[in-house]
Amino acid sequence: MQIAIALFDRFTALDAAGPYQVLCRVPGAEVVFVADRARAVSDDAGTLVLRAQAGYAQVPSPDLVVVPGGPGTAAQLAPGPLRDWLLAADQASAWTTSVCTGSLILAAAGLLTGRNATTHWGSMDKLASLGAVPRRERYVFDGKYVTAAGVSAGIDMALALVGRFAGDEAAERIQLGIEYDPHPPYHAGSPATARPELVAALA
Amino acid sequence: MQIAIALFDRFTALDAAGPYQVLCRVPGAEVVFVADRARAVSDDAGTLVLRAQAGYAQVPSPDLVVVPGGPGTAAQLAPGPLRDWLLAADQASAWTTSVCTGSLILAAAGLLTGRNATTHWGSMDKLASLGAVPRRERYVFDGKYVTAAGVSAGIDMALALVGRFAGDEAAERIQLGIEYDPHPPYHAGSPATARPELVAALA
Repeated sequence: MQIAIALFDRFTALDAAGPYQVLCRVPGAEVVFVADRARAVSDDAGTLVLRAQAGYAQVPSPDLVVVPGGPGTAAQLAPGPLRDWLLAADQASAWTTSVCTGSLILAAAGLLTGRNATTHWGSMDKLASLGAVPRRERYVFDGKYVTAAGVSAGIDMALALVGRFAGDEAAERIQLGIEYDPHPPYHAGSPATARPELVAALA
Repeated sequence: MQIAIALFDRFTALDAAGPYQVLCRVPGAEVVFVADRARAVSDDAGTLVLRAQAGYAQVPSPDLVVVPGGPGTAAQLAPGPLRDWLLAADQASAWTTSVCTGSLILAAAGLLTGRNATTHWGSMDKLASLGAVPRRERYVFDGKYVTAAGVSAGIDMALALVGRFAGDEAAERIQLGIEYDPHPPYHAGSPATARPELVAALA
């Protein structure tokens, strides 16, 4: 099983690294980071630099596609190499997925039109304007299209996805291996639970 | 505030990327990935390659040190460049921290002797044998030494840490920004909740 995680300038690191840490542990999976060409790609803080091992052309038909989000998505909503690759790869993929505002890229490419999908809580309207049916859920399955909420939600999505294609036990093993037993020290992770003034400040 | 995240061959990606994603959003923080020299460093799957921007010598006195874990820790338990740097950096640091089996590196360097600390659930005995007092908690503060449980626990630890040095509101803002409202699809993240046969298989 080939899993391609797309990188572009100013992606959000955990959007990619979260699902990666789950998916790289699936028995038989080969994960590859792809970008417009094989190169080092900087995240949205300009600090974390990940290597894309391959250009899009070298990975034409992955089984699973993951598109992260981040401020860099803005530059990916227009036609370009990422969209061209996504549309072609989606023809053959078993799963086409995104984390955070990565779903805006899928939607702008027309892949989520009329589909249930989610994104970062601050981008729901944008997702709707691009033709998807926005859902405030941690992750959303609509056929082979799977979208996660903001940043950290990619971990939850990836575990659920592994459960679907490799079985519950495979997913549970990975969860135990990465000791994913979250205990956030605050309850501010969602606009539903954070203090209203914080939500207003970040919205 | 300078934050140094140490990298070494075969580190576990999320051990570094989880805290990074929290800490890089602290106002005024400068995060730098360091290694024996400025170079690309491969994770334990050999797939995720992160760039260390600086060698240890270039970052002699960070305010906060983060040491990730992973299979590569085994090679870091003996004297060497990482230990030399850690011991020197710890003299001036405000916080010396680890994720997962990164605490074994701190302990082997003598920094956790007699201190409460934690690590990946499968490495508690090893942590004790290196002189620390192992605690089965998500993260443990003992003075300026802060250690997190396995892999994903670095996110929780980093948020708690930000709360301590930048205040609760700063931590809550970051939590909301990364939408850290975890909903694992399974309850297998801890040996206390996973099915016993799974725990036995991975122990």
